[in-house]
Amino acid sequence: MIILGKQRIGILGMGTVATGFCKTYFMNKSIIDSKMDPSLEITKVLVKDIDKKRDVDLPHSIYVDDFDDFNLEEFEIIIELIGGVNPAFEYIKKSLESGCNVITANKELMAKRGSELLEIAKNNNVLIRYEASVGGGIPLISTINDAMVSNEIIRMMGILNGTTNYILTKMTKEKIGFETALTQAKELGFAEADPTADVDGFDASYKLAILSKDAFGVIPKPEEILKQGIRKISIEDIEYGLELGYKIKLLAIGEKSNEHVELSVEPTLIPIDHPVASVNNEYNALFIEGNSVGEIMLYGKGAGAMPTGSAVLSDAIDIIKKKKDYMGHVKAENIIVKNIGLSAYYVRMEVLDKPGVLGKIAVAFGDYGISLDSVVQRARGGRVAPLVFITHEIERAKLNDALNTIENKEYVTEIQSIIKVVK
Amino acid sequence: MIILGKQRIGILGMGTVATGFCKTYFMNKSIIDSKMDPSLEITKVLVKDIDKKRDVDLPHSIYVDDFDDFNLEEFEIIIELIGGVNPAFEYIKKSLESGCNVITANKELMAKRGSELLEIAKNNNVLIRYEASVGGGIPLISTINDAMVSNEIIRMMGILNGTTNYILTKMTKEKIGFETALTQAKELGFAEADPTADVDGFDASYKLAILSKDAFGVIPKPEEILKQGIRKISIEDIEYGLELGYKIKLLAIGEKSNEHVELSVEPTLIPIDHPVASVNNEYNALFIEGNSVGEIMLYGKGAGAMPTGSAVLSDAIDIIKKKKDYMGHVKAENIIVKNIGLSAYYVRMEVLDKPGVLGKIAVAFGDYGISLDSVVQRARGGRVAPLVFITHEIERAKLNDALNTIENKEYVTEIQSIIKVVK
Repeated sequence: MIILGKQRIGILGMGTVATGFCKTYFMNKSIIDSKMDPSLEITKVLVKDIDKKRDVDLPHSIYVDDFDDFNLEEFEIIIELIGGVNPAFEYIKKSLESGCNVITANKELMAKRGSELLEIAKNNNVLIRYEASVGGGIPLISTINDAMVSNEIIRMMGILNGTTNYILTKMTKEKIGFETALTQAKELGFAEADPTADVDGFDASYKLAILSKDAFGVIPKPEEILKQGIRKISIEDIEYGLELGYKIKLLAIGEKSNEHVELSVEPTLIPIDHPVASVNNEYNALFIEGNSVGEIMLYGKGAGAMPTGSAVLSDAIDIIKKKKDYMGHVKAENIIVKNIGLSAYYVRMEVLDKPGVLGKIAVAFGDYGISLDSVVQRARGGRVAPLVFITHEIERAKLNDALNTIENKEYVTEIQSIIKVVK
Repeated sequence: MIILGKQRIGILGMGTVATGFCKTYFMNKSIIDSKMDPSLEITKVLVKDIDKKRDVDLPHSIYVDDFDDFNLEEFEIIIELIGGVNPAFEYIKKSLESGCNVITANKELMAKRGSELLEIAKNNNVLIRYEASVGGGIPLISTINDAMVSNEIIRMMGILNGTTNYILTKMTKEKIGFETALTQAKELGFAEADPTADVDGFDASYKLAILSKDAFGVIPKPEEILKQGIRKISIEDIEYGLELGYKIKLLAIGEKSNEHVELSVEPTLIPIDHPVASVNNEYNALFIEGNSVGEIMLYGKGAGAMPTGSAVLSDAIDIIKKKKDYMGHVKAENIIVKNIGLSAYYVRMEVLDKPGVLGKIAVAFGDYGISLDSVVQRARGGRVAPLVFITHEIERAKLNDALNTIENKEYVTEIQSIIKVVK
């Protein structure tokens, strides 16, 4: 049945984000409807179990458990919130081909097959929006595609995963180890029972892939993003970092040069007085550098029912009110993804506690053209002692070469940590 | 002469921001033009002195020194960058009435007469944009009006003036007084020869007025915004603040309740680990709280040729590509501006250095229903000693009543500072 005078919306899935979307809409309905003519109307929702009790005030009759029950011609917008690549891809494809605009919060899908979906949307003269797929309620996608349209974006640096930021914040403030912090994060609902997607960097790398497409016009293959999680971050590294004036954050970094784009997600030391270093707990932030505007940063909750649901609702209002695509950045042809990793690095090693060792290692670094910015040496009165270096800028491969040599010296017991440093 | 196939742009003024606009455009022309059909063309510029040498590559023939030389029907967009209320208001009015879209970076004009101009634009079916009038290159206006359209905005808190933030940062880091820091800021070009507009809070209050209109739908009269500058901030207050865990920032705060809106610009103590506290030097930031998205913050350079010019250019591209108005928030009818100032407060006083004085003052506060959160008492071995309090939440008028009484006690020499505290 076509309801005249309404912008009909169908929702696929009724989990956390869909609930947040509905709650935000009902909470702000009067102010939103006053701006919309015709107003929104949620007319069908796809769920697995029609009879499950839900925390949203929608009539039972609008729930269906089969996507084929959606008569797609009836909908102005289909909102996909089931997650995962399949069957979400097929549902969205069919929706776009039937003339529906689509909104999704599905980062994995947008990272892996987003460019196909954008192409299908374009060919069918409809829009696909995915603000909620990166940074929850923080308007990252619209800022990059619209507000920063006058700039070439040359660098992005972000905390894009709330779980790992929560864990690292806990470790830093309470001087507890990774496993303890992870357990606490699970208890408080900040980490999943299986935390792999978060702590091993998959989630952040999907988000970085989406941002790379929008900001640089470069669509990476998943394996092209250098990806390292936070499992190996030790309390020692956090403490040495603080002593040297840095915090450790899981940073997603994208940098564009004329020839290539670097894309990495890895634990990184960042100066304590840098705005990104003050992003704590489950908060996310993205630092964006444009060639004219300079550095701007956006900060907020990168997850959660209400923030993410509110981003979906802003997308819906934008589609209905503007019916215009993002202005976007130009697709970068012939620019490849390559991670040279030219950066300063923090290196922690264990060495024999004997005179002259520090000097020998400094010389060994020098042999590879690596000069040192800071050193922390601390005698422990035992056989071995820790030694911590921060290098000047060097390509990661050269650092690895140097460390391979250094690791084989008889006075070096173990190379324990290598962490990127952003100045 | 009408140039076919071009989006003709006229610029009023060729100062800092106009120069930044032109430079940003020429720097990124190829990527911008590839997205624009027809492309932009700067065809006329109003200046005082046509023959002045300028740092922008425009043909001499496009400069004119009389606004009447603009044949307004020729222009898609008029960009007003001369500043001040007059004659800018008249120029913009005529432009809008002639069917031109308008972009302005003029905060004083938008704060004082913005609603008239918006009305004129609406009646003539054209757009007026003013992103560059608040926060330089940070996309505050578009975030409030578009990205946050699904939310009711309930609170904003911002550092909206770079000069005062630079001075306060200097005072805090180098333990120097206001006058010394101001002199240094002038030398480095961060403060004007006459710094009144910045240090006395006028600039920030214009910006807050614009944000109030967009976020709350409440248009304040200039005198309705509580306005206090930073001239009286002493190094003692900064040091006691740090000791108690706070930094002092000149904060513009807007808060909406059902009955009224509070709008104030005043020095404020903010917890050191709050993201706004880490906004240093000439940087600006706005913390926005939506009823669904929660807290988001935008950070960046709030002034400067290139950031501000790039915001003007984003507005221009938006006008040409979208030809759509901001989605905006609903105008709040019957909501008045009223500053009750319900907040915690920092109070520093000088008292006689005798036993029992602290207790007597605590009792005096208690008589007015004011309880204390923190106290710093320090004997100096002299006749008098400093005493610092942070109160629990109290209305400003009640605090003033209490302090009027306390100031008259024989053991109180002087009330030296009263500063709002944000928790």
